[in-house]
Amino acid sequence: MSNRLIIFDTTLRDGEQSPGASMTKEEKIRIARQLEKLRVDVIEAGFAAASPGDFEAIRAIAAAIKDSTVCSLSRANDRDIERAAEALEPAARKRIHTFIATSPLHMKMKLRMEPEQVLEQATQAIRFARRFTDDIEFSPEDGSRSEEDFLCRVLETVIAEGATTINFPDTVGYAVPELFGETIRRLRERIPNADKAVWSVHCHNDLGLAVANSLAGVMIGGARQIECTINGLGERAGNTALEEVVMALRTRGGYYNLECGIDTTQIVATSKMVSQITGFAVQPNKAVVGANAFAHASGIHQDGILKARETYEIMRAEDVGWTANRIVLGKLSGRNAFKQRLQELGIELDSESDVNAAFARFKDLADRKAEIFDEDIMALVSTEEREGGEHYRLVSLSQRSETGELPHARVVFSAGEREVACEGTGDGPVDAIVNAIESEARTGAELVLFSIAAISPSSQSQGEVTMRLSQAGRIVNGVGADPDIVVASAKAYLAALNKLHAKERVNPQTERI
Amino acid sequence: MSNRLIIFDTTLRDGEQSPGASMTKEEKIRIARQLEKLRVDVIEAGFAAASPGDFEAIRAIAAAIKDSTVCSLSRANDRDIERAAEALEPAARKRIHTFIATSPLHMKMKLRMEPEQVLEQATQAIRFARRFTDDIEFSPEDGSRSEEDFLCRVLETVIAEGATTINFPDTVGYAVPELFGETIRRLRERIPNADKAVWSVHCHNDLGLAVANSLAGVMIGGARQIECTINGLGERAGNTALEEVVMALRTRGGYYNLECGIDTTQIVATSKMVSQITGFAVQPNKAVVGANAFAHASGIHQDGILKARETYEIMRAEDVGWTANRIVLGKLSGRNAFKQRLQELGIELDSESDVNAAFARFKDLADRKAEIFDEDIMALVSTEEREGGEHYRLVSLSQRSETGELPHARVVFSAGEREVACEGTGDGPVDAIVNAIESEARTGAELVLFSIAAISPSSQSQGEVTMRLSQAGRIVNGVGADPDIVVASAKAYLAALNKLHAKERVNPQTERI
Repeated sequence: MSNRLIIFDTTLRDGEQSPGASMTKEEKIRIARQLEKLRVDVIEAGFAAASPGDFEAIRAIAAAIKDSTVCSLSRANDRDIERAAEALEPAARKRIHTFIATSPLHMKMKLRMEPEQVLEQATQAIRFARRFTDDIEFSPEDGSRSEEDFLCRVLETVIAEGATTINFPDTVGYAVPELFGETIRRLRERIPNADKAVWSVHCHNDLGLAVANSLAGVMIGGARQIECTINGLGERAGNTALEEVVMALRTRGGYYNLECGIDTTQIVATSKMVSQITGFAVQPNKAVVGANAFAHASGIHQDGILKARETYEIMRAEDVGWTANRIVLGKLSGRNAFKQRLQELGIELDSESDVNAAFARFKDLADRKAEIFDEDIMALVSTEEREGGEHYRLVSLSQRSETGELPHARVVFSAGEREVACEGTGDGPVDAIVNAIESEARTGAELVLFSIAAISPSSQSQGEVTMRLSQAGRIVNGVGADPDIVVASAKAYLAALNKLHAKERVNPQTERI
Repeated sequence: MSNRLIIFDTTLRDGEQSPGASMTKEEKIRIARQLEKLRVDVIEAGFAAASPGDFEAIRAIAAAIKDSTVCSLSRANDRDIERAAEALEPAARKRIHTFIATSPLHMKMKLRMEPEQVLEQATQAIRFARRFTDDIEFSPEDGSRSEEDFLCRVLETVIAEGATTINFPDTVGYAVPELFGETIRRLRERIPNADKAVWSVHCHNDLGLAVANSLAGVMIGGARQIECTINGLGERAGNTALEEVVMALRTRGGYYNLECGIDTTQIVATSKMVSQITGFAVQPNKAVVGANAFAHASGIHQDGILKARETYEIMRAEDVGWTANRIVLGKLSGRNAFKQRLQELGIELDSESDVNAAFARFKDLADRKAEIFDEDIMALVSTEEREGGEHYRLVSLSQRSETGELPHARVVFSAGEREVACEGTGDGPVDAIVNAIESEARTGAELVLFSIAAISPSSQSQGEVTMRLSQAGRIVNGVGADPDIVVASAKAYLAALNKLHAKERVNPQTERI
């Protein structure tokens, strides 16, 4: 069996299903480009049939990505597969990932189909998908609760029909490593043509075992593809974290003896990008990408930790892309230096006028903040993209608070062509601003999450505010960055209103693999 | 072999070693009381010989805790063991946990001792510890890199001498489950008196495998104690997360077939308390205790997720203590209702005057915030305790900012008997406040972390600000809560200055197990 392990990233599909993690097309393209830099083998870019928004994002990613295979999820029916194929049409390398439930419960309650019908539909789906590509992945949904005899029949048939990857999901995060690995081994032993497909694992982390389950699937079960997400993003407790499983394979390479193509030095940059775009913070004690994961990368220089570093270090921070914050640009930096840094950071703006707009914002920031870090540039561009041609935009703001008095805010914002001035009071300046904006915008949106992170660790850093709004069952995230956290909050609120305004699909599909 | 699994919590010892997670004595007592409610079998309360502060905290916990065994770490020498015994003297049940390195590297470089000397010292340490208690735990530091023959000799000897628990640590988080489990099984097979001690595992999560390693230690290796921390707190990527390993054992009880005494309904309350006190946020996609871990506990009501809930749920949110935020108290609530709620939350204030002071603050908050949640009460009391008799205290604050102008703040605070008024400007209101306070306090402390979390998800919730300061190698956290995040920031900064002022030990020991 080959020692080459395929890394299949599903941050943009399963990761996005996390409530509140939905992304715009531009954000998805940015992440896809970074995933390509990270050298993931397969990027699952979305679920083409789920919505026009998903379709457009996959198509744009398929056109932008050259080195990684681009994949779309699809149910096992002709329409879904056709939409997936259409979205993937521009891709240099494309994969269609189709699935159908094989457990008695799901077949009966959800599909209302007999097992024979499910088998027939799976077979038809593979046959139809082959019109568009030779790279076809099949997942038996709720596979772990399926009857093994039936599962073997289905999998044998889809492989015979041309499925090249068989993915075994632990949809609800219930597996334990040794049993999960043995199930896959048994399936592979029982299915005569099992070696004609690459076997894959897809694990969720509800019991903290996703990485171990994935590795057991590989070591015991003989799988050669791991499906995972950046930061372990995903519904509930999320999916297998790419950074953890890759660094386990690498750090214990002598034991696992598998090759994977990931450029680990891109891990931290990718993690930061995903965290910034989704507003999902990474906890300090998160493995590999947490701020404390490497003692000396946390900005803390403590005797003893530094001395003991080599005795206790099993990975080098540099190997996963941790570098000290560097002052890269300042007030005097020119447009060329700015543009070059954008390129180095993997940020590609669509046009020169976008670069100009970003550069103007950079100069504005540099006037107010002496030291501009990479994180600042990423926040700047990310805000820039969001604000392009959007409905609501902050014009100006003033606020004051004093002990014993009600905080007060005055906000001027544009709504389309119109400029609106409003005032409000509240428990604090942020509350006053939200009340002021709502007094005019009247969206009735409910704020369900409000968090602030410093982009770099200092009160002089920019603050990055994430606000998650819920309106009639739709959930959106708005992110705003500014050296002044009150201004950042106003920007975040307006950014969220823009997403609600755009009326694009913002609720990810609820199909689960 | 018994099926009873011992849960040994080391949040207060190994968890506190996380840079920035150091806690005051009062905070440690509060967490210890909550751990007792959670019914952990053993609470490792600290390292008595490390500092007078650690000693006092252990002693206070030993006096307060009735149901759990209280444990102190100590090196394998008489002085350390004596200090541990002295600190544990008031305990109803006490354990001394002593350790010495057994790897060639550590023995030579750190201890500068021959193996025979190490063996002799370990033996002497157990003998000496038995003067004070029959409950003695021994850890061979860097055990996984030790020569197995030597390790067997040491462990056999310390068991013969009276060690009742043998803890095998994966100090650097390098282990993989199957190998780790097999090492422990081999050791237990080779050591003739192995069954005279309970075997224990202590894993770190650098490769995302701590939970799986712990479970392999139990299932393959026959260990019957797991060392863990709340939220997986701990240096670098932290330790095995108590909530994950306990819920894996419970959810897959049919497979693991082990009993543990944990009251899982206390898990979320404990997680929130530890996160609040240390300022270490829990990421939304953290297993069990993350805000998204259970879809319907995240405040998000989305079609499809709710419908599909039962199909996809392997644990019930109620079983780990997730409940919707409840409005528990308001403006009209009286002192008795407040006091009763404190009791229900497991908060015990030392005196009636402390209750009175907390109640006064509660009324003040209720004037400004209509709905008071449990989280607000916990923040209130936690602030209360911190402010008791401390050096710096916020008196009043006013600030304003306006687009195009430099944010400005005026702060009045007391420093001991003196009242100080100061002004400052900055990039934003928080920066202006820090500059204002520093213009008078002149501590020269460097702000290394600044984070804001909403105590409940709404802009009308209180904000909770954590500021981590570094001064001459000492690192402290200050936490401040207020409906106004700017005020919360001022409180957090002063709280951090108080910790620096107190000159108590704030850097945890750097010995590692």
